[in-house]
Amino acid sequence: MRTIWRAGDGRSVETIDQTKLPHAFVTLRLASAEDASRAIREMRVRGAPLIGATAAYGLALALLDDASDGALDAAYRLLVAARPTAVNLRWALDETRRAVAEVPPAERAARAFARADRMCDEDVAICRAIGEHGLEILRAAARRAGGRRLNILTHCNAGWLATVDWGTATAPIYRARQEGIELHVWVDETRPRNQGAALTAFELGEERVAHTVIADNTGGHLMQRGLVDLCIVGTDRTTANGDVANKIGTYLKALAAKDCGVPFYVALPSPSIDWALTDGLAQIPIEQRDGREVTHISGLAADGQLREIRLTPANTQAANYGFDVTPARLVTALITERGPCAATTDGLNGLFPARAPGSRGPK
Amino acid sequence: MRTIWRAGDGRSVETIDQTKLPHAFVTLRLASAEDASRAIREMRVRGAPLIGATAAYGLALALLDDASDGALDAAYRLLVAARPTAVNLRWALDETRRAVAEVPPAERAARAFARADRMCDEDVAICRAIGEHGLEILRAAARRAGGRRLNILTHCNAGWLATVDWGTATAPIYRARQEGIELHVWVDETRPRNQGAALTAFELGEERVAHTVIADNTGGHLMQRGLVDLCIVGTDRTTANGDVANKIGTYLKALAAKDCGVPFYVALPSPSIDWALTDGLAQIPIEQRDGREVTHISGLAADGQLREIRLTPANTQAANYGFDVTPARLVTALITERGPCAATTDGLNGLFPARAPGSRGPK
Repeated sequence: MRTIWRAGDGRSVETIDQTKLPHAFVTLRLASAEDASRAIREMRVRGAPLIGATAAYGLALALLDDASDGALDAAYRLLVAARPTAVNLRWALDETRRAVAEVPPAERAARAFARADRMCDEDVAICRAIGEHGLEILRAAARRAGGRRLNILTHCNAGWLATVDWGTATAPIYRARQEGIELHVWVDETRPRNQGAALTAFELGEERVAHTVIADNTGGHLMQRGLVDLCIVGTDRTTANGDVANKIGTYLKALAAKDCGVPFYVALPSPSIDWALTDGLAQIPIEQRDGREVTHISGLAADGQLREIRLTPANTQAANYGFDVTPARLVTALITERGPCAATTDGLNGLFPARAPGSRGPK
Repeated sequence: MRTIWRAGDGRSVETIDQTKLPHAFVTLRLASAEDASRAIREMRVRGAPLIGATAAYGLALALLDDASDGALDAAYRLLVAARPTAVNLRWALDETRRAVAEVPPAERAARAFARADRMCDEDVAICRAIGEHGLEILRAAARRAGGRRLNILTHCNAGWLATVDWGTATAPIYRARQEGIELHVWVDETRPRNQGAALTAFELGEERVAHTVIADNTGGHLMQRGLVDLCIVGTDRTTANGDVANKIGTYLKALAAKDCGVPFYVALPSPSIDWALTDGLAQIPIEQRDGREVTHISGLAADGQLREIRLTPANTQAANYGFDVTPARLVTALITERGPCAATTDGLNGLFPARAPGSRGPK
């Protein structure tokens, strides 16, 4: 099962409403750019690659109704503003717009759908390739562990729910499981939206990967005690020099990994690279969301109902930054679909020479 | 109002059930060592100094019923085992036992109550003194901020609810507020028990100190952006060389503070010093609690009821470490009731020469 697919009516796509997981598995039909934008903003779909795919379909859906240049621009602007940090959103929209720009309006919707379909297939292939390259790293770590079960820490959800299939950070884990490597995953719950406790735990449970949910406060302690062999996380945007924007709190885990000598890997599909940026802290826009996502939380009550409760005193103000930037110096390696590389300009240029700044190759 | 007081019947003490805050203010009557032990274990009272005071009263309550040596020992053993990390618990029990050891059984209960009463007064005096010394640090920081509002980050609750009154980490904040220093507190929510979101936010709201609750993941990002002038936290046990055990996640904030050049202070009442230990990571026992505190959470539902909800898939396993150890090298200074000092053996010995290892002075 993929996380987004074209519906039978040919005029909509379907996806999973991730705000209901793990308590209910509910699908969601998107029939317009507005639907796609809302699903992204409300985080019913989330994860940088899936946001990209959803936006691409959103553009295609808009073109079904009105394939004029004006409608194309309006849909692009609506969708690109849905969330600011993951660069995949802009990348996917640029790719889709490019695919339709030179064709007559009557063909645009079909071209856009075709490009979105292909983008999904590409995402699956990218994740599979990240899985293979990451598997090598896990194999080496397992050898170093000498037969002991490998302990991996991850933050947020960079699993199949965040992508079209396989996931980025989880792809090596799923491959290692297939290969019979004994492993166990420490799952950061990832407040305030709890993508770890809700989504990664759900995924790993479905795939029968041993795992333990922990409060986000816990990873440093575990690393101090030698209970983490390596960390793998995803990314929403990585700069050309290897600075990594990822879910808020990633930076803290990278600091602990550095302090404790634990390797810290970032699974990086190339559409998450922002080749135009060279300073993550200064240049990557960090989303701020409603403080209510911090002061209130939903879950399954004893009566079987999904309920929201308030955690703070009434009217308490909360700040809700969605991402932080992990400086490249804290990253052991980036794991891309073309293999691992150092989190440096040279490292990325070595794998993607045509995309390097100043390159004359195709962009 | 203090957090623990003798009831009018002379045979019990009362305290605040902190598991109900901030949604309900409920007092709790403790009439036996068992009651005191249960209140500590269930975290109805918490915070190292208040745990100590509650244990001291617990011993006094036991002696009301049976003042024999055997009963004294049994109550001591019951209470000292209630929680493992905060050394104040053992300190308070040792102090109280010492106060009654040499007197006839008929006088023991009264002596124990008197010692517990005095311990509470001492705690208030210690917190006031920490407040004065911390105020100097905040004054200097405010001068450096040049009139701009001072931003302070704190983790967990080291406020008046954690002590008998004033708090440790919050005492300088409350004093600074009295002095008219403009400040704002970033309140880590402090999963899994949310002492920040529930208790520190409640306290600061009552005292009209500007504050914003944040997910525990957020502090590193804020420090990277220059939005934190200094951190102040409490401690459950500090070793003779300055290693600090405090609520899980403290280590991560100390790492970020170091990385970002933000001063990191620990408010340290001397009963929280474990003079026998010289290696926090190796020697301080770290409490592990029920994983259910991670997978489930309580709060106020829309219907006005306190409700518990589940956050994870059914039967998800969670680990729940209560504390971590921040190595002394990450601590800018300890703020004790005798003044600030370096987080080193020499620093602590300078302020407490009689307690230094190898000293012949009174212990």
